Amino acid sequence: MDSLFSVAESDPVFGREKAGAAEARLRTALLKAQYARLAKAQRSLLIVIAGIDGVGKGASVSLLNEWMDARHVRTLAFGEPTQEEQSHPFLWRYWRNLPARGKTGIVFGSWYRPLLAEAARKHPDQEKIQSLARATREFESTLTDNGVQIVKLWYHLSKKAQKRRTAELLSNPDTAWQVRPEDVKAGKKFERLRDAAALAISMTDGEHAPWRVIPAADPDMRAICTGRAVLAALREGSRKPSSHPSDTRIVAAAAQAPPTLQALDYTAKLADDEYDRQLAEWQRRLARLAQHGEFQDTAVVLVFEGQDAAGKGGTIRRITHALDARQFRAIPISAPTGDELAHPYLWRFWRDLPRPGNIAIFDRSWYGRVLVERVERYASATEWRRAYREINQFESQLLDSGAVVLKFWLAVTKDEQLKRFREREESPFKSFKITPDDWRNRRKWDAYVQAANEMFQHTSAPDCPWHLVPSDDKRHARIAVLECIVKALEHIRNGKKKS
Amino acid sequence: MDSLFSVAESDPVFGREKAGAAEARLRTALLKAQYARLAKAQRSLLIVIAGIDGVGKGASVSLLNEWMDARHVRTLAFGEPTQEEQSHPFLWRYWRNLPARGKTGIVFGSWYRPLLAEAARKHPDQEKIQSLARATREFESTLTDNGVQIVKLWYHLSKKAQKRRTAELLSNPDTAWQVRPEDVKAGKKFERLRDAAALAISMTDGEHAPWRVIPAADPDMRAICTGRAVLAALREGSRKPSSHPSDTRIVAAAAQAPPTLQALDYTAKLADDEYDRQLAEWQRRLARLAQHGEFQDTAVVLVFEGQDAAGKGGTIRRITHALDARQFRAIPISAPTGDELAHPYLWRFWRDLPRPGNIAIFDRSWYGRVLVERVERYASATEWRRAYREINQFESQLLDSGAVVLKFWLAVTKDEQLKRFREREESPFKSFKITPDDWRNRRKWDAYVQAANEMFQHTSAPDCPWHLVPSDDKRHARIAVLECIVKALEHIRNGKKKS
Repeated sequence: MDSLFSVAESDPVFGREKAGAAEARLRTALLKAQYARLAKAQRSLLIVIAGIDGVGKGASVSLLNEWMDARHVRTLAFGEPTQEEQSHPFLWRYWRNLPARGKTGIVFGSWYRPLLAEAARKHPDQEKIQSLARATREFESTLTDNGVQIVKLWYHLSKKAQKRRTAELLSNPDTAWQVRPEDVKAGKKFERLRDAAALAISMTDGEHAPWRVIPAADPDMRAICTGRAVLAALREGSRKPSSHPSDTRIVAAAAQAPPTLQALDYTAKLADDEYDRQLAEWQRRLARLAQHGEFQDTAVVLVFEGQDAAGKGGTIRRITHALDARQFRAIPISAPTGDELAHPYLWRFWRDLPRPGNIAIFDRSWYGRVLVERVERYASATEWRRAYREINQFESQLLDSGAVVLKFWLAVTKDEQLKRFREREESPFKSFKITPDDWRNRRKWDAYVQAANEMFQHTSAPDCPWHLVPSDDKRHARIAVLECIVKALEHIRNGKKKS
Repeated sequence: MDSLFSVAESDPVFGREKAGAAEARLRTALLKAQYARLAKAQRSLLIVIAGIDGVGKGASVSLLNEWMDARHVRTLAFGEPTQEEQSHPFLWRYWRNLPARGKTGIVFGSWYRPLLAEAARKHPDQEKIQSLARATREFESTLTDNGVQIVKLWYHLSKKAQKRRTAELLSNPDTAWQVRPEDVKAGKKFERLRDAAALAISMTDGEHAPWRVIPAADPDMRAICTGRAVLAALREGSRKPSSHPSDTRIVAAAAQAPPTLQALDYTAKLADDEYDRQLAEWQRRLARLAQHGEFQDTAVVLVFEGQDAAGKGGTIRRITHALDARQFRAIPISAPTGDELAHPYLWRFWRDLPRPGNIAIFDRSWYGRVLVERVERYASATEWRRAYREINQFESQLLDSGAVVLKFWLAVTKDEQLKRFREREESPFKSFKITPDDWRNRRKWDAYVQAANEMFQHTSAPDCPWHLVPSDDKRHARIAVLECIVKALEHIRNGKKKS
């Protein structure tokens, strides 16, 4: 730990006359590097600003805005989470505000806050620290593997210099306002914050998302070091792969026998009158559950995947029929827009997450990454293989935030699909549902089956399993899905009642 | 009023056998019309669903999703406003969720709720009704004039039929869940709701945003009439201009002598030491104000316009220097993206409005509509002339929601601009700030001056005036702006203390 901060705590001084020339060169270089990146638009850059309070972090943000072309830099400053932010996974607000490829975001009040706060406590909870650090590593890996570059700046100085800086500012009525109450507090517990920072940095430093310690006692030194660290990041050409953290959920999932499409019984059938009776029954139970006060604080995410013409749309309508239109949103997922392509692939799904009391129904989903993007080679093998872990982490974060996640695969046989394609072609108002894409996908039937089976294997966690629903008989499939949703929600309601 | 609902209250029946054939034709036609619109992508369509409770509105939304290609239809269902929605102007959530050109949105829980609720009270407030109806007309005019088509469906039936429908549903345990408590209530005060609807419709019906009454007693009639109304709207080719509501604010503004750029004194200057002293003083006061608890429930919007090189960026940095980075967002406005072009021009500004306790600083703004878009002919004369009123309404809504709005024009002389352009060209890290666009704009100096003066004339309302700041001396301009902001916020704080 000593070597990490030893330079910064020696409070080095840059020298006024040298600084002027260095600044001029740096500004020109920063602008040049910024424009080169904008032109390429390959990766976005997140600059995380952190450090003990009262060391000039705010001034450094202003400086970057002044030295770079501020029109392509966005300061992302996060304070206490709002009510809406609190009701979503912790990382939600950071995901939603990611800059697009080519652009730069300066993050203030970053995802390091809980880790630093825990580590700085008198009696920190070691397990919590481990888990917060792991979540941070996973988040940063997912970003850096998907087009976001991260550099993290830790502003540091000696305890003496921090005290002196605060005292100087306070002594002058014109600058006293720059000292906030937390700055004074930070001075009082300098050692604890310092050790917490050293621990947090050591647990989250990596080639793909490096920490840089910025000596902050001398304003010139602080400014030049900030500029140089950002310049180095802007210039960094090729993507550094993250060192993949191990994923305990995948291991746990693999211990179970994963379901496969071949093992399903496709002969399951439901007679007309039995279907009508059961549909009314399950819709009634679903409506009662959804209207119930206990669900006002639960967000529900339903995921529908399956072969083309497996009956996803019809099944979804049978569900929404039992719901108040204000309570759900059906989200059809098609090819990403330009804006979506300029962000990590999970970004658009983060933006569509439901708030508590609401139900988001995804008609296709983030699993496209390991299905269509894999089979059609829109994603490289490295990318889609990595996606299993990224998706598991995403769903874990959803579950941890209290959301209910149910995943359905509606499975039809190749013969049944052909029958439905033909029916669609002949129906005047269903023909729009069948496109050349559908026929093309059908020719790759086996590749899709393989991708689906591997997906079940890697993403069926015990707490978030795949539900495979034989759908050659649409009525059977609809009832099976409704029943599964109702039973899952009833299970949760009963759990809540007990607690 | 009688003729409005007389057909619907006769509870007409479509006839089962006729309905089948009509439905088949209608579905094919709807899909065709939907695809034609998507291909053209000229206008989006908002379908407002309203009516007395318990008449099958939800079923009609499901039906449209089934009959049309649901992938390009979004159901926009609004319930009770969330905390965040409540802290923004009432129309904020509707603006933010507008569909893009070519797409369709079905609005449930629309902006008619407050008007209908007030009109249905035992002793309605006539003035409130007038003001709500006017706000609705203005909102719909702005949308329909800017690429959004609106059709509004009112579902209606006789009192007897409504009672019978509710009783039938309730009598069967499998359908009783479809009856919500408000449906039963609606039956009890049928007449009052009916008269309220007639009043609201008569006050907000117009060629550009028409109401259609849908007979709702017979499910077939309801379905076919819904489909036909939507089909007619989808097919409607050319834009119907709105009948412009009069704007009282413009009249009020015109009564004052509007400021002009020619009348300014450009010789105002501030000496170096005086500037340093005043800068520290005003920044200190601004920082104190912003940190004050009284501002946690006030949203502040600062608008900066002015000639190129007038010093907007530098002035903004002097403001943000006094603020916590978590408290403000600087929003540079440049040419609209594809996504922004697919929406009304005000859409992107609605999305960037600050929440209470936050400050949004617009570096250029919605006034681009009457400045660059006018001079460069990106907007037609009809469009930019209409924009004065649309902008005034937008700002009125901001003010009504409790926001503080301050508008600054930083004004330089033509000579001073030339000097700064030359300086920028020579500076290695300022040269990026000068582009061929700047020189081109300069050649149109007089046209911009004229556009600016007319803008001051039409958009300087007494409660939201333009502040023209002579900026040939940057230091003078920065202090003038800071002083104006501080004094405005102090004025508001004092007002709050009194109340």
